[in-house]
Amino acid sequence: MSAPVRFNSRVTPRTPAGNARCLWSGGVRGASRAHDVRRLRDLLRSAVQGDRFTGGQLPGETELMAEHGLSRAAVREALALLRAEGLIERTQGVGTHAVAHSVSTRITEAHGTSSPSPTSLLNRRTRPRVLDRSVVALSAVAAERLGAPAGIPCLRLEYVALHEEEPLWLATNYALFPEAEKLRDCPFVTDWYALLADAGVEFGASEFVIGAETADPHTAAVLGVPAGAPVLAIEQTIADVSGRLFDLAFVQTRADRFRIVSRGTRNPMLEELA
Amino acid sequence: MSAPVRFNSRVTPRTPAGNARCLWSGGVRGASRAHDVRRLRDLLRSAVQGDRFTGGQLPGETELMAEHGLSRAAVREALALLRAEGLIERTQGVGTHAVAHSVSTRITEAHGTSSPSPTSLLNRRTRPRVLDRSVVALSAVAAERLGAPAGIPCLRLEYVALHEEEPLWLATNYALFPEAEKLRDCPFVTDWYALLADAGVEFGASEFVIGAETADPHTAAVLGVPAGAPVLAIEQTIADVSGRLFDLAFVQTRADRFRIVSRGTRNPMLEELA
Repeated sequence: MSAPVRFNSRVTPRTPAGNARCLWSGGVRGASRAHDVRRLRDLLRSAVQGDRFTGGQLPGETELMAEHGLSRAAVREALALLRAEGLIERTQGVGTHAVAHSVSTRITEAHGTSSPSPTSLLNRRTRPRVLDRSVVALSAVAAERLGAPAGIPCLRLEYVALHEEEPLWLATNYALFPEAEKLRDCPFVTDWYALLADAGVEFGASEFVIGAETADPHTAAVLGVPAGAPVLAIEQTIADVSGRLFDLAFVQTRADRFRIVSRGTRNPMLEELA
Repeated sequence: MSAPVRFNSRVTPRTPAGNARCLWSGGVRGASRAHDVRRLRDLLRSAVQGDRFTGGQLPGETELMAEHGLSRAAVREALALLRAEGLIERTQGVGTHAVAHSVSTRITEAHGTSSPSPTSLLNRRTRPRVLDRSVVALSAVAAERLGAPAGIPCLRLEYVALHEEEPLWLATNYALFPEAEKLRDCPFVTDWYALLADAGVEFGASEFVIGAETADPHTAAVLGVPAGAPVLAIEQTIADVSGRLFDLAFVQTRADRFRIVSRGTRNPMLEELA
């Protein structure tokens, strides 16, 4: 029972039931095919997005059938779901390959409160395509969110973050003055935190409300994904060193390219592993 | 220019351009209607999800047109997008109302590393509908993720978290022994962290990889949303007090009901505001 860690494991334990991989059932057992397909899809998606298949090559259908105790049709259905998501490609006679993997960014880097690692996307590795840089009246919704009066001027700075010419996220910032004045006049060369630093704008805290959306046709076109594609949606507020909010941003991130890693510890000894 | 914070502000500053709300343009100005629609949609969605419209009532079309300097068609398009997302309802003669708002949960509570607030969903306010509780062979992908041998037994515990009988998330856990033995035999009454506590399973750290997906038809049926609806996807690993991983979970959360709040601070004084 203790084979080395490897994909395509052919270990087949003896089972009490018909399903090759079930060792014990506690009475509640959702063995329906739809559940099985979803579970396999989730496991394979995790490995694809995490770039954990050697050379990007997925196990063959027969191997997946044996490992998961599933029919060929169920395996094919799971692979079809991943293909529809644009995560894998299947070529007759060649096999199944991961098309791309997502980049995982530590949440503290995304907050701008820890130094980006050398390989991080936030280490000046993106460049902005600015869509809008204008001073507009602060809308009531944004005003309420920032705790500022509606109608005062704010800098709307909207851009697409590109990495190797591929769009990664679309961000619309509403920045209050006096910070807005510095941001308005400063060249925007890489990422938002670099812009803040270059403009001499200090900040004290950054908050995210993280959700998911699907891309409307226009957002999809900007991000280079099909309409209806999943988007990781981050609503961000940034406070100055005294806690006063000066920026509200709506960030729509390609879910097939970007994920956020967060870690909570109860044992301070484990902090170092983060 | 400093009106009190309120919705439906009618402040109309003087503008250099045709657009009622543009005060200054830096040359780059994405004033296309598609951009305008998306920006308005994002602002309104933020207020709907954050439950910030009094009585759930959105401003009227005319008010939104005046405030944002947009045509009636553009305002209607933004509202149509929110309606398609199931976030608002429009009734002739009555107006536009938020249908539901999302619950924001602090990421430290979601990690199980801070005590849930009294109003938190994670304060024993959900109950599980268990779909599967069986011992299966650990798949190669899960084994690699947990740093354990493929093929060893693990407890697959899958459930839908219900709040007031409404599904909120679907979670599939793969838990290793010896923890799995305690989890297998313990009544699962509210949430996962309560189960860990009830089963006497201590943990030291919890890590998330946060992404977005769209619901396949089966997942959609389980969550009570339309197929293709956005899902906040959390891949979780849980470590024991020594740092050894003993649980891998795939959590699919309704994006229309659940968002995660995270805060990063550079100024320790601002920690208290988190």
